[in-house]
Amino acid sequence: MKRPCVHCWSSDGELQRKMAAHAVSVLVTGANRGLGLEMVKQMVEASHPMRKLFACCRDPDGPRAEALQTLAKKHPNVIAVVRLDATDLCSIKQCAQQVGSVVGNGGLNLLINNAGMLAKGTLQETSTEDMQNTFNTNVMGPMNIIKEFLPHLRAAAKASGTPGMSSSKAAVVSISSFLASLEIVKQSYDSFPAISYRISKAGLNMLTVCAAEELKKDEILFSLLHPGWVRTDMGGDEGDIDAPESVQGMLSVMASLTEKQNGAFLDYKGKSLPW
Amino acid sequence: MKRPCVHCWSSDGELQRKMAAHAVSVLVTGANRGLGLEMVKQMVEASHPMRKLFACCRDPDGPRAEALQTLAKKHPNVIAVVRLDATDLCSIKQCAQQVGSVVGNGGLNLLINNAGMLAKGTLQETSTEDMQNTFNTNVMGPMNIIKEFLPHLRAAAKASGTPGMSSSKAAVVSISSFLASLEIVKQSYDSFPAISYRISKAGLNMLTVCAAEELKKDEILFSLLHPGWVRTDMGGDEGDIDAPESVQGMLSVMASLTEKQNGAFLDYKGKSLPW
Ligand SMILES: NC(=O)c1ccc[n+]([C@@H]2O[C@H](COP(=O)([O-])OP(=O)(O)OC[C@H]3O[C@@H](n4cnc5c(N)ncnc54)[C@H](OP(=O)(O)O)[C@@H]3O)[C@@H](O)[C@H]2O)c1
Ligand SMILES: NC(=O)c1ccc[n+]([C@@H]2O[C@H](COP(=O)([O-])OP(=O)(O)OC[C@H]3O[C@@H](n4cnc5c(N)ncnc54)[C@H](OP(=O)(O)O)[C@@H]3O)[C@@H](O)[C@H]2O)c1
Repeated sequence: MKRPCVHCWSSDGELQRKMAAHAVSVLVTGANRGLGLEMVKQMVEASHPMRKLFACCRDPDGPRAEALQTLAKKHPNVIAVVRLDATDLCSIKQCAQQVGSVVGNGGLNLLINNAGMLAKGTLQETSTEDMQNTFNTNVMGPMNIIKEFLPHLRAAAKASGTPGMSSSKAAVVSISSFLASLEIVKQSYDSFPAISYRISKAGLNMLTVCAAEELKKDEILFSLLHPGWVRTDMGGDEGDIDAPESVQGMLSVMASLTEKQNGAFLDYKGKSLPW
Repeated sequence: MKRPCVHCWSSDGELQRKMAAHAVSVLVTGANRGLGLEMVKQMVEASHPMRKLFACCRDPDGPRAEALQTLAKKHPNVIAVVRLDATDLCSIKQCAQQVGSVVGNGGLNLLINNAGMLAKGTLQETSTEDMQNTFNTNVMGPMNIIKEFLPHLRAAAKASGTPGMSSSKAAVVSISSFLASLEIVKQSYDSFPAISYRISKAGLNMLTVCAAEELKKDEILFSLLHPGWVRTDMGGDEGDIDAPESVQGMLSVMASLTEKQNGAFLDYKGKSLPW
């Protein structure tokens, strides 16, 4: 499979030239497995070097981070494994401080809110706890992460010196789901209720669209991506595609984002999804 | 102003005849002031008698419930003031038990999730507390209320003996807001950010659309209403309309609901709103 480049992640020649102008720094949450790990893999193995890749996970020293640590050891100058639990504001603040001390005035170009959890179940099966955990992880987490990393995103936008918006300048991409779409509930609820997950991802969508409005004056781009139904721990064995295909698509979409896609909700092929 | 009737709430003759066939029981949350109090007032003062009107509020004996208690004293056989705090599961369970002991096998025909709170503020101004309080009141509250009153709604659907769906048979109407609409964020965010409120009402919309799917087999109707921008404590002095006008419109829309509007998002004039 053709690996997209970390700067350009696309085959568009002009874009490649534009993006290769400066090395970018990227942060991915939930980077120890599933789609997050695959993003780190593809970005670091792409042909152009990148400044820094902050691969965040809840427990960097535990067994669930072994694959990530092995990858990081192969690219010690690029990958930094940093602790970040999306439900723990203190860990988010510490992570933002660590990242700030590395990126300095260059800032953080791209923040990928990938960490997420799924609780299945209908209205009648869903507990208050499911609702609260899912909301904390999938909405409060991204919200606090955006707030704490805002200074570094602003720094990146300032440092870039180019007009407009892009994911190599200053951007937040949040991994949503087609299950966040209110319009498709009728077609999809019976086979996959997951009401707490749908509520949380609809909330993440609203958070992102609002942030896109609020921060456009700072030239920070906000977009939502649906990765497809992917065979990961979350997606299960029945998924339509595997993680490399999903991530290749998403990185290519990220590379193509401009101010026109500020506040957009796209799938891994770049197709716009209905609210 | 013409008061709509509690059974028909509309000038549609056929509908009036259909709905007058049996007296309905209704529950309204947040009934001590604003739109909730006005709903109770208009329903009880309408020309046809109604079986029972459960007017719920957090503190029935406190000063904030005085106007409601005065109204209830005028209609002791219809209005029952019952304690319900949307953020307190225990009070919801107790309220459901009290209501059950009154309505028995006839069930509860119409549940109006009206109680709600608004926290203003942008992403950068909104605290974790604002987010959690708003989510608990505007999403977890309605969710737990729906779950606890489900047996009474099912009983009403069974007892009705008529096919199809309507608000005089078995229905849940949740008061949402046009601020829940993802599509209108671009036009409205600058003048009214309220990010935690928007996230919560988008969550309420998702909850409702999912519940509409899950419970259609039980012939329980679920709809969302936007009351307009109304001059209440929440809406402020600048609102477009006053509470009587909003409530007259909403009661008329409620009376017109059929299975076609199951899962719909309508304003107080019956106009469909975008997600
Ligand atoms: N797979 C699909 O079909 C699909 C479809 C639509 C959307 N998505 C979205 O895509 C994203 C990635 O999903 P995936 O399929 O890769 O899921 P996954 O295999 O279950 O991985 C989830 C990742 O999120 C991390 N995570 C969970 N809670 C966290 C927290 N509180 N703090 C930090 N990290 C946390 C996990 O870390 P631990 O190892 O520590 O648990 C793990 O790294 C999610 O946002 C998901 O909702 C997936
Ligand atoms: N006014 C508008 O322009 C507007 C526009 C769109 C949507 N809405 C929606 O319409 C509904 C009613 O709004 P309103 O204008 O009448 O607001 P309001 O005047 O502020 O009244 C809010 C009501 O909700 C109750 N409430 C708040 N938290 C509660 C809780 N935890 N448990 C039980 N009751 C609680 C309040 O009771 P207490 O007295 O105990 O606080 C009060 O009765 C809300 O859902 C609101 O979001 C209003």
